[in-house]
Amino acid sequence: MVQYQAARLDASFAALSDATRRGVLEQLGRADASITDLAGTFRMTLTGMKKHVGILEQAGLVITKKVGRVRTCKLGLRRLAEEAAWIERHRQLWAARFDALDEVVEELKQKEKVNGHKRRE
Amino acid sequence: MVQYQAARLDASFAALSDATRRGVLEQLGRADASITDLAGTFRMTLTGMKKHVGILEQAGLVITKKVGRVRTCKLGLRRLAEEAAWIERHRQLWAARFDALDEVVEELKQKEKVNGHKRRE
Repeated sequence: MVQYQAARLDASFAALSDATRRGVLEQLGRADASITDLAGTFRMTLTGMKKHVGILEQAGLVITKKVGRVRTCKLGLRRLAEEAAWIERHRQLWAARFDALDEVVEELKQKEKVNGHKRRE
Repeated sequence: MVQYQAARLDASFAALSDATRRGVLEQLGRADASITDLAGTFRMTLTGMKKHVGILEQAGLVITKKVGRVRTCKLGLRRLAEEAAWIERHRQLWAARFDALDEVVEELKQKEKVNGHKRRE
């Protein structure tokens, strides 16, 4: 179960690690599009765009359907909920670690103040 | 500026696309650790772990510092704010698209109902 989720996160983060693929998701968020449309919008060969769409499809972020000669792409059922949750948890850990660091710095400042007073006495 | 941000998102999403690297970030969220510690925790060779840490470092997610023979790793200054924002925007587009789809389905159902009544009349 956990391994399955890890593999899914691997696939979706890898799919998101390319500006063109993120652009395709944004485009499909506005309207469905054919591979030919997408290749045109992103000034790319059909082969190149097919490869990008294939990666998005494998990650569950895009669904494609071929009707006649046209393959239409639309957003898949993955809502990136797990990805959002992972990032949120990391951000909270991050904040907690840096808050702890701030406390240490504050403590050192206070000590320095006390020592400063002592030295002046 | 936009290209710079795109390159940063490419690097951070790619860094997050590996379960070991996500594990390292979670580990460093709890406490700083040496490369040797991390290699031990994730049952990996030093060389393998150095490579993973290098990718995290290039993405700004980890900072390393060598003192004597020990290289200590800690969380970097990147808070994944842009990544969280990108995913959130996608989720909103996604929800809007599927809400629109729901409306179409609802409309079709209503029409079907009316037609059903008409047929029965």
